[in-house]
Amino acid sequence: MNNAAKPVVAGFDLGGTKLLGLVIDAHSTEPMVDLKIPSPPGDVDAVIAAVGDLGQQLLAKAAQECDHPVQLVAAGLGAPGLVDRSGCFRYGANLPGVIDGQLGQRLNEALKVPVAVDNDATCAAWAEHVRGAGHGVEHSITITLGTGIGAGIVARGQVLRGTNGFAGEPGHMVLDPNGPPCPCGRNGCWERYGSGTGLGWLARRAARSGSLESVLSGVDGDVEAIQGEQVTGAASSGDPEAIAVLNEFAWWVALGLSNLVNILDTETVILGGGLIDVGDLLLEPVRDAFGHLIYGSGHRPVPPIVAAELGSRAGAWGAALLAQQRLR
Amino acid sequence: MNNAAKPVVAGFDLGGTKLLGLVIDAHSTEPMVDLKIPSPPGDVDAVIAAVGDLGQQLLAKAAQECDHPVQLVAAGLGAPGLVDRSGCFRYGANLPGVIDGQLGQRLNEALKVPVAVDNDATCAAWAEHVRGAGHGVEHSITITLGTGIGAGIVARGQVLRGTNGFAGEPGHMVLDPNGPPCPCGRNGCWERYGSGTGLGWLARRAARSGSLESVLSGVDGDVEAIQGEQVTGAASSGDPEAIAVLNEFAWWVALGLSNLVNILDTETVILGGGLIDVGDLLLEPVRDAFGHLIYGSGHRPVPPIVAAELGSRAGAWGAALLAQQRLR
Repeated sequence: MNNAAKPVVAGFDLGGTKLLGLVIDAHSTEPMVDLKIPSPPGDVDAVIAAVGDLGQQLLAKAAQECDHPVQLVAAGLGAPGLVDRSGCFRYGANLPGVIDGQLGQRLNEALKVPVAVDNDATCAAWAEHVRGAGHGVEHSITITLGTGIGAGIVARGQVLRGTNGFAGEPGHMVLDPNGPPCPCGRNGCWERYGSGTGLGWLARRAARSGSLESVLSGVDGDVEAIQGEQVTGAASSGDPEAIAVLNEFAWWVALGLSNLVNILDTETVILGGGLIDVGDLLLEPVRDAFGHLIYGSGHRPVPPIVAAELGSRAGAWGAALLAQQRLR
Repeated sequence: MNNAAKPVVAGFDLGGTKLLGLVIDAHSTEPMVDLKIPSPPGDVDAVIAAVGDLGQQLLAKAAQECDHPVQLVAAGLGAPGLVDRSGCFRYGANLPGVIDGQLGQRLNEALKVPVAVDNDATCAAWAEHVRGAGHGVEHSITITLGTGIGAGIVARGQVLRGTNGFAGEPGHMVLDPNGPPCPCGRNGCWERYGSGTGLGWLARRAARSGSLESVLSGVDGDVEAIQGEQVTGAASSGDPEAIAVLNEFAWWVALGLSNLVNILDTETVILGGGLIDVGDLLLEPVRDAFGHLIYGSGHRPVPPIVAAELGSRAGAWGAALLAQQRLR
C-alpha cells in the first residue's frame, strides 16, 4: 500500500433501479462521499463493470474531498436477494440476469481487495446497528418497507446469517394461505400486505368496496391506477378514508413484526424504507397493533418500534462497514 | 465440596402433567438416572418443594447406581412458557399459578447450587444439539409437536435467547388471521393447526365434511370426541381418509417451518414431541410440502427435516446440560 495514500473502503447498494455507492475512511465509520447511478442492465458482467466505474468515480471524488490521495483497501456490496456466504447471488426476483452470479469472486478479481457481499437489507441492518437506530442494541431487526420487504437481523451484536447466509427473509413469511398470490409462488406472503405493493393492493380493495373516494377521483376513477403513494399522500392530508387504509396496512405490518419478535425476541424493531417517510401516521398504528399482537403481551416488555435513521444510504453504508470487518 | 463425592448435575422438566428429572455426571453428558412424578399442583412453593424432593430421590438413586456418594453441583429446570434471563417464569398458559414466579432465585435458595432455568423446548433443543439430532450442526431449530408447539433455536452453536430470553415462540406465529381462535387471544396461530390440538381440529373439520368415516365410527359418531391420536392411529393402519387429514396437518407443519427457515436459515430442522411417533407417515409429507414452501426453493439447499433423537427426556437433559455450563 502507498503509505502516503489514505486507506478507504467502498460500499455499494445494488437496487432494481439504482446503484448507490459511498466511501468511508478505513479507520472510521463516517461516509466521505457518495454517488448514485441508474442500475446496470442485465448480467453479472454489467454489474461488475458498473461497480468498478462507480468505484473509480467515488475514489476520485474522495481524494478531491480530502485533498489527499486515497487507496481502496476493501469493498462491500449489498444485493437484493439470497446471497450465500461465498458471495454468490443465488436468487432475487428483481435481478433475474444476476442469479447464480459469483459477485464476491468477480468483484474481488476486479477490485483486488477483500470483498464482502451480502443481502442489501442485511447491510442496512448492520449500518443501523453500528451508526443508526440500533446503536448499542445487541438484538435488533431492521425491516425495510419498500416495493417489497427486506430484513436484516442482529443477534448478540452480530449479523445473523444462518447456515448459508440466507437468514432474514420474512417478506415471504406466509400470513394467510388464502391470501393474494405472490410472484414467489405462494399465497398471502407478508410482502403482499406489508410493503408498498401491499399498500396499493389494500387501497384498490378498499376503493372497489366504495371507499377512498378522493384518492379514486385523483386517478380519474381508475381503481387499477391506485398505488401506495396516493394513499400515504391523502392520509398525510388528513383524508379519513386513506387513514383507515393506512391503519389496515399498519395492522399487517404489525402482524408480521409480532411473528418475528415471537421468534427472535429483539430489543428493538427498526423500520426503514420509503414508506416510513409518513412518520408517526404509520408508526403509531403499527406500535398500537403490535402491542396487542405480540405473544405474552402484558407479561413482557414490548420492544420499541423506531424509525431507521440512516435513510437511503443505509445499504451501501452497511456494505462498507461489513467490508471493513474483513480488514481485522 | 466433599472430595470423595462424585459431582453431579440435575435437570428437571416441568410439564403441565408431569415433572421429569434426571442426573448427569458433572464431567460428562450422559444421564445416570431419571425419575418422573405427576406435576405439582398450583404455585411456585409447590414447584420448588417438588423439585427439591425429586432431586433428593434422584441423588439417592444416582449414588446407589454408581455405588459412590454423589454431590449436586448445579441444577437446571425447563418450564413451559416465557422464562426471562433471571429465571423468572413470566408467562405460560398451562401453569397459571406459577406466572411471575422467581423460579431461578427460589431454586438457587433451595438447592444452594448454580441454577439455570429456561424454556422447556429451548432445553430440549440444546440437548438435541449436544447429544441428539443436531449434534455438530451450528444452526438448528428444534420444534416439539405436542398439545402445543414448542421451539428452541441454536444459532452459531449457542442457544438463541433474544434480549429477554423469550426467543423461540413460533407456536403463536399467526398463519391465518381468519383462522380458528387461539386461547392466546389471536386467531390462526400455528399451534391451532400444527400441534396435537390442531390435528384434532383438522380431523373434526374433516369429519363434519363427511370424511373420516372409520374414525368417526370409533367414537360412536360423536365428532366432538375426535382427537389427534385417533387420526394418527387410523393413518398408521392405512386408512386413506385419516392419511389425507395427516397430510393436511403435515402441510400446516411445513408452512410454519418454511416461515421459520426463511427467517433463520437453519442447517437442520428437528421435529420432536409425541406426534412424530408415527415417523415417516408424518415426516415424509412434511418434507415434501416444505421443499415447495421454502423461499428460493430450487436455488438453495433445502434443510433436512429429521426426527428428534432424545425422546421425552430431552427437556430435563437439556436443562442439566445448560446448568453444567454454569460451572465453567
